Amino acid sequence: MDRIKSTQQTSLSKAVFRARLAALREKMSACGIDAYLIVTDDFHASEYVGDYFKCREFISGFTGSAGTLVVTADEAGLWTDGRYFLQARDQLEGTGIRLRKMGEKDVPSIPVYLKEVLPEGACLGYDGRTINGAYAAKLKAALEDKRIRFQGDQDLAGQLWEDRPEFPAGPIWLLDEKYAGKSRKDKLSQLRECMKEAKAEYHLLASLDDIAWLYNFRGEDIAFTPAALSYTLVGADRALLYISPRAVPDEVRKALESDGIELRPYLQIYDDMGHLPEGSSLMLDEATVNVALLSAIPENVRKVIKPNPTRLAKAIKNPVEMDNIRKAHIKDGVAVTRLIYWLKQEMNQCPLPEITELTICRKLEEFRTQAEDYLYQSFSPIAAYGEHGAIIHYDPENGTDAPLRAESFLLLDTGGQYLQGTTDITRTISLGKLTGEQKRNYTAVLRGNLNLASAHFLHGCTGLNLDYLAREPLWELGLDYNHGTGHGVGYLLNVHEGPNGIRLKENDGSRGAVFEEGMVTSDEPGVYLEGKYGIRLENLILCQKAEKTDFGQFMRFETLTLVPYDRAAIDPELMSERELARLNVYHARVYEAISPYLPGREKAWLAEETKPF
Amino acid sequence: MDRIKSTQQTSLSKAVFRARLAALREKMSACGIDAYLIVTDDFHASEYVGDYFKCREFISGFTGSAGTLVVTADEAGLWTDGRYFLQARDQLEGTGIRLRKMGEKDVPSIPVYLKEVLPEGACLGYDGRTINGAYAAKLKAALEDKRIRFQGDQDLAGQLWEDRPEFPAGPIWLLDEKYAGKSRKDKLSQLRECMKEAKAEYHLLASLDDIAWLYNFRGEDIAFTPAALSYTLVGADRALLYISPRAVPDEVRKALESDGIELRPYLQIYDDMGHLPEGSSLMLDEATVNVALLSAIPENVRKVIKPNPTRLAKAIKNPVEMDNIRKAHIKDGVAVTRLIYWLKQEMNQCPLPEITELTICRKLEEFRTQAEDYLYQSFSPIAAYGEHGAIIHYDPENGTDAPLRAESFLLLDTGGQYLQGTTDITRTISLGKLTGEQKRNYTAVLRGNLNLASAHFLHGCTGLNLDYLAREPLWELGLDYNHGTGHGVGYLLNVHEGPNGIRLKENDGSRGAVFEEGMVTSDEPGVYLEGKYGIRLENLILCQKAEKTDFGQFMRFETLTLVPYDRAAIDPELMSERELARLNVYHARVYEAISPYLPGREKAWLAEETKPF
Repeated sequence: MDRIKSTQQTSLSKAVFRARLAALREKMSACGIDAYLIVTDDFHASEYVGDYFKCREFISGFTGSAGTLVVTADEAGLWTDGRYFLQARDQLEGTGIRLRKMGEKDVPSIPVYLKEVLPEGACLGYDGRTINGAYAAKLKAALEDKRIRFQGDQDLAGQLWEDRPEFPAGPIWLLDEKYAGKSRKDKLSQLRECMKEAKAEYHLLASLDDIAWLYNFRGEDIAFTPAALSYTLVGADRALLYISPRAVPDEVRKALESDGIELRPYLQIYDDMGHLPEGSSLMLDEATVNVALLSAIPENVRKVIKPNPTRLAKAIKNPVEMDNIRKAHIKDGVAVTRLIYWLKQEMNQCPLPEITELTICRKLEEFRTQAEDYLYQSFSPIAAYGEHGAIIHYDPENGTDAPLRAESFLLLDTGGQYLQGTTDITRTISLGKLTGEQKRNYTAVLRGNLNLASAHFLHGCTGLNLDYLAREPLWELGLDYNHGTGHGVGYLLNVHEGPNGIRLKENDGSRGAVFEEGMVTSDEPGVYLEGKYGIRLENLILCQKAEKTDFGQFMRFETLTLVPYDRAAIDPELMSERELARLNVYHARVYEAISPYLPGREKAWLAEETKPF
Repeated sequence: MDRIKSTQQTSLSKAVFRARLAALREKMSACGIDAYLIVTDDFHASEYVGDYFKCREFISGFTGSAGTLVVTADEAGLWTDGRYFLQARDQLEGTGIRLRKMGEKDVPSIPVYLKEVLPEGACLGYDGRTINGAYAAKLKAALEDKRIRFQGDQDLAGQLWEDRPEFPAGPIWLLDEKYAGKSRKDKLSQLRECMKEAKAEYHLLASLDDIAWLYNFRGEDIAFTPAALSYTLVGADRALLYISPRAVPDEVRKALESDGIELRPYLQIYDDMGHLPEGSSLMLDEATVNVALLSAIPENVRKVIKPNPTRLAKAIKNPVEMDNIRKAHIKDGVAVTRLIYWLKQEMNQCPLPEITELTICRKLEEFRTQAEDYLYQSFSPIAAYGEHGAIIHYDPENGTDAPLRAESFLLLDTGGQYLQGTTDITRTISLGKLTGEQKRNYTAVLRGNLNLASAHFLHGCTGLNLDYLAREPLWELGLDYNHGTGHGVGYLLNVHEGPNGIRLKENDGSRGAVFEEGMVTSDEPGVYLEGKYGIRLENLILCQKAEKTDFGQFMRFETLTLVPYDRAAIDPELMSERELARLNVYHARVYEAISPYLPGREKAWLAEETKPF
């Protein structure tokens, strides 16, 4: 793997970060804080965060999407996971910050580390708005014996940050019911039913995707995800939406208000929580509410700790959403298919034109942009050539952009946000002659992908019950992939969205969410051979009801993604008749759906690519 | 389905049970008890119990293996599950006891019922030795608001029972190390390691299979399971075994004592628990320790609540046990194969001889008894002809014994206890010409059975991850079975033994136990068509290590059971090539292992039955 240098890193000298660290320590000392914690989260535990929230990067220079900085008077450490070990090593070099490789032996977790280094009765500081309740509880439990004082009201990094980007504030816009499929009034009354059942008079909702879904609006405060910084407090009769006033255009305000939604300034939630009626009951999910907000809740308010009901309701797409999503996948399928055709033609030229991983990303964006209602990418695209393909979260933006050669595989994992939904697709494209092993492995991944999508199962199954289907062909060969097989996907929201998923095991030890009609999940087995290449094939699959018999309701998946597999990489001899039939049926569907939107040459090429084996 | 009348029921008039109920109510009133609970358990939460413990049957006349009687001054109800609705209806008729069908709408659970009927501050009585800690906690939680008083020191039914069977007391006998594979000294020191890890100075073990396994002895106090009524308290240096002195022959006592195990009278455990050192720590599993014993533990002893470490250690069979188990399955395979041959010959006679379900059970027992080291059946055998096969826990002893006709299926689920291990096998035998549907369904069950046994998976999988393999062929047809696919099996102990299992979901919401090399599990898919027939095929499978690659340790199963499937019931057209290959390989193994022990004619027949498709 190549060394990674970010553009930001090269433009700022390490001395800058050393100076910032020193300034932070001065602030800590002035406040009587012995250790200070800077996490990656915004105030809503969002997966992607806006630039305003990148305090950890501001102090440490580390640009990865996951990592926590812990600073004491004598030490500074950055905890991050395996995806970022090399990048963090380079970016932290010379900053005085030690890289702490999470998951490696002898590397303590942050709570264990703090327990070791903090003296009895010391003070731990952090910006409480960036720490969720569940993590704070873990810290408290670990540090209980040492009587540590927690100080969560100081954003010390923010105080040092002179040219901090402006706090993001929209504008938000309304998602028409022809896209959302259900009015915000109906969603609100459904939510209120859940509140009644849970015996909760109020419900505090802090996760941005849930709020945007509930009120049928979208924003632009978060990278890749059209959500807006906001909170909402729902009561039996009132619904308060906390959002920056400048983020809400007049006509949007009017529409929301006419549906009984009262707007208040974003920060007023902290005050309002303190004035909840004595003895009232408040439902919330500790994993998505930050600890500053949690501690604003009066002691005499009874907390009903529960996953947000919107989490499940949002995952179960309604019929209008389902129809829209099918349309989005046709548009996305056209764009990705055209990209593959274009690339295959380019790679046939002699001499080979200079095409790099980033060229591919830009070209695909060109194709996607041609579609109506396309907004932008749903995540940072992964175009990983050859050995880069074996790095599961590879990002060509990190200074490793490589030119393609007429051999091996390009792994291309990208997605788009459309008014008709969110897409996420991976195709692995052969760029020249493949070895027998490469074909064998591609075919095994393909078989897992097809077999999972063909599952026919009794209602009640979760992803744990089905994961085997995707892995079986790889396990036959002694291969495996070190990631989940599938994640839930939102509707014009997060590309990673719970509660549905397909995994061998859930992090919380549970069996996961039962598959319901309308859930969209990815199906993405892979093989990663370090230093050689990576293969991943990802389709989105929509859970549907199949037949109902005396034995119960059966379920099946409809494959949403419509892009051909790479014919040149498939060895049909390694597939059973049943698997070949599945492949042929899928390819026929792809041709039928996509070909009407392709120019003549591309259409002819697709006909060849998708003809039955 | 036929009406079920037990022999016991017909011999005792309903008036007897009405009188016993009245006497119980007098006792309750004399003790100031408002509601009295009689469960099915012995003092150790054993699956099967000795006659001494059948208080519920003594009062109510209901003979089922699961059910709880609740008596108040005005009402009496028996809670049982779907297996026993018909039997309980008949047996309770005229006793003044109302059948409460568990799982049906409008039938409250016992805690909910008690909450409804008991007045504030009332007294709930039971024999605390028969109620486990986990259940008691559930009752307490439900009745907290009503300030119910719990009185657990009265065995009122026992006080009424004049001709109660004697308290069972052995004798116990030692299981030689050539069978157990590991000395009790080694097992004890392994257990003490777990105690150290859990920071527990003492460990109280009340589950009889764990105690018998730990000390390498077997007993005869429990039906079908060679365990002995006992407790053990293990400390860092001492191990106390509480058991009736008359249950322990002199040479057994000497052997145990020479390994540092001190024997004490069975009931002394209650006293001794009260004298645990102040401030000491005690590990126990609340699901297997009764509440009388739990409440004897002093307040100042710290309880470490954990599954018994012996549960997992016992499930992972050692190499000696594995070798023995293989031998037991050859003997068992010979017996069951001979039974099938005999039955097929009988069914070919004209006129048809009178053979009933119970004839089959007796005949099979004859064949099993011919094997060296065979002790007795490992559970009450199920021989279910025709429509009886659709009743999942059918027992021909319940007055429904039926003669066989030369058509449809006989479902035969039986098992044996050998010095070399415990067996459990189901074969479904065609007794004449089958319909196309019958063949199709038999073949689907067979495919599920073979495909699960052929699983090849990464270490870390649990039964939840593999269950799909057994159900897939049935789900294809819109069929299913309403029971788990597999349960763990003990070594010359319980035929149902945790923690391993193969299910779609675990009752506790967890993902279940990870498969380890040495675990024995059943593989038993089925189809049950009410009023028509039932099909189940059950083999025991032994988890083994397969290859280790860069991606981890792979696992596979070795099929232990060696009895042919019914050739006449298989439609090879409905099987994939891979499935046919699996079938042929299995049948070849069966022939190779079993045929040397068969007389000429049976051998020739087996050769025909097992020839490749």
